[in-house]
Amino acid sequence: MNYRARQAKLLRLLEEQKLDALLVTHLPNVRYLSGFTGSAGVLLAAPRAVFFTDGRYTEQARQQVQGARVTIAKGSPLAVAARQCQGLKRVGYEADTLTVTQFHALQQEMGKGIRLVPASGLVERLRAVKDAGEIEAIRRAVESSSALFRPWLKHFKPGVTETELAARLEFMARKAGAEGMSFPTIVASGERSWLPHGVASPAALPAQGFVVLDYGIVLGGYCSDMTRTVHLGRATAAEQVMYGAVLEAQLAGISAVAPGTTAGEVDLAARKVLQKAKLGRYYTHSTGHGVGLEIHEAPRVGTGSQTVLEPGMVITIEPGAYVPGKGGVRIEDMVLVTATGYEVLTPVGKTLLEVHEN
Amino acid sequence: MNYRARQAKLLRLLEEQKLDALLVTHLPNVRYLSGFTGSAGVLLAAPRAVFFTDGRYTEQARQQVQGARVTIAKGSPLAVAARQCQGLKRVGYEADTLTVTQFHALQQEMGKGIRLVPASGLVERLRAVKDAGEIEAIRRAVESSSALFRPWLKHFKPGVTETELAARLEFMARKAGAEGMSFPTIVASGERSWLPHGVASPAALPAQGFVVLDYGIVLGGYCSDMTRTVHLGRATAAEQVMYGAVLEAQLAGISAVAPGTTAGEVDLAARKVLQKAKLGRYYTHSTGHGVGLEIHEAPRVGTGSQTVLEPGMVITIEPGAYVPGKGGVRIEDMVLVTATGYEVLTPVGKTLLEVHEN
Repeated sequence: MNYRARQAKLLRLLEEQKLDALLVTHLPNVRYLSGFTGSAGVLLAAPRAVFFTDGRYTEQARQQVQGARVTIAKGSPLAVAARQCQGLKRVGYEADTLTVTQFHALQQEMGKGIRLVPASGLVERLRAVKDAGEIEAIRRAVESSSALFRPWLKHFKPGVTETELAARLEFMARKAGAEGMSFPTIVASGERSWLPHGVASPAALPAQGFVVLDYGIVLGGYCSDMTRTVHLGRATAAEQVMYGAVLEAQLAGISAVAPGTTAGEVDLAARKVLQKAKLGRYYTHSTGHGVGLEIHEAPRVGTGSQTVLEPGMVITIEPGAYVPGKGGVRIEDMVLVTATGYEVLTPVGKTLLEVHEN
Repeated sequence: MNYRARQAKLLRLLEEQKLDALLVTHLPNVRYLSGFTGSAGVLLAAPRAVFFTDGRYTEQARQQVQGARVTIAKGSPLAVAARQCQGLKRVGYEADTLTVTQFHALQQEMGKGIRLVPASGLVERLRAVKDAGEIEAIRRAVESSSALFRPWLKHFKPGVTETELAARLEFMARKAGAEGMSFPTIVASGERSWLPHGVASPAALPAQGFVVLDYGIVLGGYCSDMTRTVHLGRATAAEQVMYGAVLEAQLAGISAVAPGTTAGEVDLAARKVLQKAKLGRYYTHSTGHGVGLEIHEAPRVGTGSQTVLEPGMVITIEPGAYVPGKGGVRIEDMVLVTATGYEVLTPVGKTLLEVHEN
């Protein structure tokens, strides 16, 4: 990864904001800018960047950090970073993640004469557009997690519990090299299929009905995210219609992805299909979100999102419909915005799958 | 769980601090006081408590929340909670976890005339002393995770990777009903055994040497935490001496646990043994920490900790020694402070186990 190029881009944003430096404390941002993957580190992003961590990470910082001088703090890295700011006038800080207690410690250590300016979202804006190394890492995460899907389905049979299926998937993912799951695995069957965010429960799979399967892994620090909905036993005609509407909405969302389009227009393209199918009021969430070092990051793909899509953005397209008493369906792919349109990254079929007992 | 009794105790602390109310935003604290387990909820703890969440959790809040009126917010629960504070004078907030952005939103919504007072640690102080329902839940988590240890060891053989072993354990834990692991499983073998916090890596187990195994589960919302160090192949005399010293330190730490003793004295009891064995400088961390709804909570059991132990506290005792080039050993139990002394909760033997290939 080209950490120096990322820091150079950030410096241009800091100039726009008339900031002398940015105290980067949100760990995914620290990793993005410096390569450091530990749990305690602060980057003072400035023309001469300095990275601060504590004694536990001396060796790791030496190995990982690029584009910044490394300082090992005795005590709190944040306090030492604050003292390093002497002589600066306007220093940005990440107000969306810094706690009030940390902020007060900062103020105290910095002393007078330095203006602390809330500046969340600057690094996130850069992170929304992935560079070549990141796209490569995301492809690997998506491919590795997608390859689990079919083998996982072999374990689906009436009576097996949702948590056991989640555990099985997670075991397969870890064996395939994943550092972990990118969020708690969703296996939502029966009545729970119409809860949009039902994590796996101790309930056994029923003999009939939709099961929403939403999962992702972390590989090389990057997240994947996909959803498929399968049907236990034979789907009724009504269920097939519902599935078809969600799939049509998902394809419409994907087709709308192009550089220059707003994220809100992509959301609307998917939403319109479900409205036309009289499922609009059962589509209770946004169409998608950016994915990268974090499972949810910029841009949001929801009603009214003004973010203009750019080549290199990686977003999910995941419309769903959740009809109480009937069932829930969601279908989700990861999609890369390209120079000319889009590329669907998730290589898993979307035809309605019926799972029958052998 | 007796949520009303907990809130009553909190109200007495608020009176001491001359606070009219506490805006509880740290989710484990919200759960502790109200029973709510979702990912978005705020409790205004006051003589007439009010709980705020959003539309996703209408049904769940109705089922779970006790001792507080439930309000479903359109928009941010925090903003609605802030407006609810009208007429109050001094309102506490949890500065250690509230972000600066959230704090500014609070100030804006509250308007003038209300003094916001940083008041972190109040609920944590209550949580440090577990009530009967919590001790029962912790016992279940400890027993369930302890029962995995021996079956897990069957999978240890030279060549299997640390991550595969972690995955295997996590699969077994989930099958046994765990909601998840309480922290990333540590399987640290070979050179990594002397990194105190080496999570499982893709490295294969070597034929010889210590392997530090540190893991815990979450069951019914409560965490467990245990460490055992096993030896692959035959341990040398020097390794046996080192293991024996850590075990002696651990037993000394446990023996020191009693109501009225400070946590610092417990730390010192363990530390002295390692110092006497000339391993003091290889004991680079604290002796333990409280465990409950969070894997690390009050009290800290480290050098100089002034907290006086009370019946109902649940702490870990986990000294270790990490000698570069030689090996690392850590042994950890969870210990309940009782009216007369202590009870070791972790029912797993501590004699040095050698794992031989069959």
